[in-house]
Amino acid sequence: MSPNRSPQPLAATPAATAVLAMVLTEGPLSRVDLARRLGISSAAVTKAARPFLDDGYLHELDSERTAPGAGRPVSPLAITPDREFVIGVKVTADEVIGVVADLKARIRNSAHRQLPDCEPATVLATLAALVEELLDADPELRGKTRRMGVAVSGDVDRVRGVVRLSPLLGWQDVDLAGPVGDATGLVVVVENDVKALTVAEHWFGDGVGTDDFTLVTVGAGIGCGIVTGGRLLSGAYGVAGEVGHVCVDASGPVCHCGARGCVEAIAATEAIVGRARLLTGRDGLTFTEAAELARSGSPEVCALFSEAGTAIGLAITAVVNLIGPERIVVSGEGLDAYDLFETEIRQAYATHAFGAAARCPLTIRPLPFEEWARGAAAVGIQTLFAPARG
Amino acid sequence: MSPNRSPQPLAATPAATAVLAMVLTEGPLSRVDLARRLGISSAAVTKAARPFLDDGYLHELDSERTAPGAGRPVSPLAITPDREFVIGVKVTADEVIGVVADLKARIRNSAHRQLPDCEPATVLATLAALVEELLDADPELRGKTRRMGVAVSGDVDRVRGVVRLSPLLGWQDVDLAGPVGDATGLVVVVENDVKALTVAEHWFGDGVGTDDFTLVTVGAGIGCGIVTGGRLLSGAYGVAGEVGHVCVDASGPVCHCGARGCVEAIAATEAIVGRARLLTGRDGLTFTEAAELARSGSPEVCALFSEAGTAIGLAITAVVNLIGPERIVVSGEGLDAYDLFETEIRQAYATHAFGAAARCPLTIRPLPFEEWARGAAAVGIQTLFAPARG
Repeated sequence: MSPNRSPQPLAATPAATAVLAMVLTEGPLSRVDLARRLGISSAAVTKAARPFLDDGYLHELDSERTAPGAGRPVSPLAITPDREFVIGVKVTADEVIGVVADLKARIRNSAHRQLPDCEPATVLATLAALVEELLDADPELRGKTRRMGVAVSGDVDRVRGVVRLSPLLGWQDVDLAGPVGDATGLVVVVENDVKALTVAEHWFGDGVGTDDFTLVTVGAGIGCGIVTGGRLLSGAYGVAGEVGHVCVDASGPVCHCGARGCVEAIAATEAIVGRARLLTGRDGLTFTEAAELARSGSPEVCALFSEAGTAIGLAITAVVNLIGPERIVVSGEGLDAYDLFETEIRQAYATHAFGAAARCPLTIRPLPFEEWARGAAAVGIQTLFAPARG
Repeated sequence: MSPNRSPQPLAATPAATAVLAMVLTEGPLSRVDLARRLGISSAAVTKAARPFLDDGYLHELDSERTAPGAGRPVSPLAITPDREFVIGVKVTADEVIGVVADLKARIRNSAHRQLPDCEPATVLATLAALVEELLDADPELRGKTRRMGVAVSGDVDRVRGVVRLSPLLGWQDVDLAGPVGDATGLVVVVENDVKALTVAEHWFGDGVGTDDFTLVTVGAGIGCGIVTGGRLLSGAYGVAGEVGHVCVDASGPVCHCGARGCVEAIAATEAIVGRARLLTGRDGLTFTEAAELARSGSPEVCALFSEAGTAIGLAITAVVNLIGPERIVVSGEGLDAYDLFETEIRQAYATHAFGAAARCPLTIRPLPFEEWARGAAAVGIQTLFAPARG
């Protein structure tokens, strides 16, 4: 995030951060419930909530009386979703996909633009034009949009707003937050795409209400965001959640990382397509066509998807056996073919999850087009808060 | 821990806990250094340290002047290791191993007793006799020993002091802390053995000074304690660190858990011995004899150890790629044969660690006889502190 750009975070104290985050993600909630769940006094909740009520970020719902004679009526606090809007953009190798979301991360509108190339200057100009297009779509949005999240595949230094390394884009040490902020006038935060998606899922999706949550994404790469103790793991050396490089077969195919039998070498879309091309002799075969072949009864191509599903399932089970999340979600554009994967993923999980770890619910679902951009918007929403520790 | 037994924890406030823990694990440290590293004021450090100085748990080292004219002399705070002693006991299927340790977890003396059987009553009586033997060895110890940690393989409810399930001992829902406390008059805490060893390593071994640390143990089982963000992972369903049940070969041998290709099915001592017996036709072959055969040039038996080392290395790499610890230690009685494992462990790690994750230093070393009991003592030392959050 560009450090000198206003607006400042709304919530600057630990109590204010905790109250706003809990109402945002789990509200509406009464002050009494907030106090109980956060382990602070009702007076501290009231004090922390007051500026957000004054600024219109929170509002009180109509009074409720839980039972006749139950004392003073309760007015739960709720977020005002359209108090502010946030832009989220995912940068891929060939296009940028953008959304405008409200404070509940609900998408108001979306747009995308092709990228003629991946040069930082090209991406910057395209991002700036995309932002204009998004804000032009609805007069309400322009005056209320001050923050933007950008999601990029690779190693991202969120604090400095720099993409340290993105093999997909061919980038090394590209300052993105600064120039995008200058071009758009918005507060810009840059994050790794899988981490951004994990934030969205943790705050607004299946991860709400738990501190121990894992999201696995399946597609061009196979990635994973791990939240434990409420903290997104980032790794002492900047590497964590690399579920795609868990080895499930030491004599398996060689991965782009150089090792053998990585999940990505078996189950990433390119790995499946590459093997399907070899099997069929059709050089131009696409992933969608490979999936159609599998569905229409080619046992060899079908076996490729089964093998991929098993590899994904084994890697997920490694996460569950090692870390013990409360819930796990498997998603991604690769799961457009999830009918071909799901049985094997679940079977590997059922067979290999150790003891009570198997109780962790496994949700498998495809990822709609704009979800990655919504993940970026969720990271933008986080700039409402003081930067989290560590 | 038995909740109604004195003594109470010494450190009851967050500041007192933080100061005592940091001096204990990383001291001697000056008040100024403590304040800086803990992010609290020097006045708060002084206030928190005062009762520990009064009670003799801490002492001031001789004044040091860092440079001439550098102002008021600095008197670093240090733990007084022999202010109190703590007993640690590891319960195995055929013996109990005990140590008395000082507050730096240095072993003062040790003893062990055979177990005729694993019945809880037998174990209780043997533990009580072992404690007497340990305390009788040195008159200084009896008056200064009030706490005890017990380490058991299996699923342990530390808060209740109950062993929920220990397949090795054939135990289910055995209350251990209560009866052992009654029999010995000590404050008793019970913990899973691998977790206890991880605490010892984190507080007094190679894990000192980092919040992100992993210990892998290799032996009858293959286990793992994972500390991330300073917190020992315990899993939302009570399962975490099960590195022994990471699948590294879906077509590998069947594990006792029912799945195929678990690391334990390839690299646990029993797995190696079982396969060596089949190869050699020697039914009574021991692990030590198998290791000797490998060293004396039997290529088939040597290959078993190599395969085990590779499996362990792949599982360690899964931990590193997923969690990204700052340091990792591999230890255990199985590593008495670590000359036969080490090359393959390191090779699998070098090949499969993803990118910068490979920078995580990997320490491989055998585990001396009393280390498990010392782990239990370290957990006993933790009862000096208020119970950690969840």
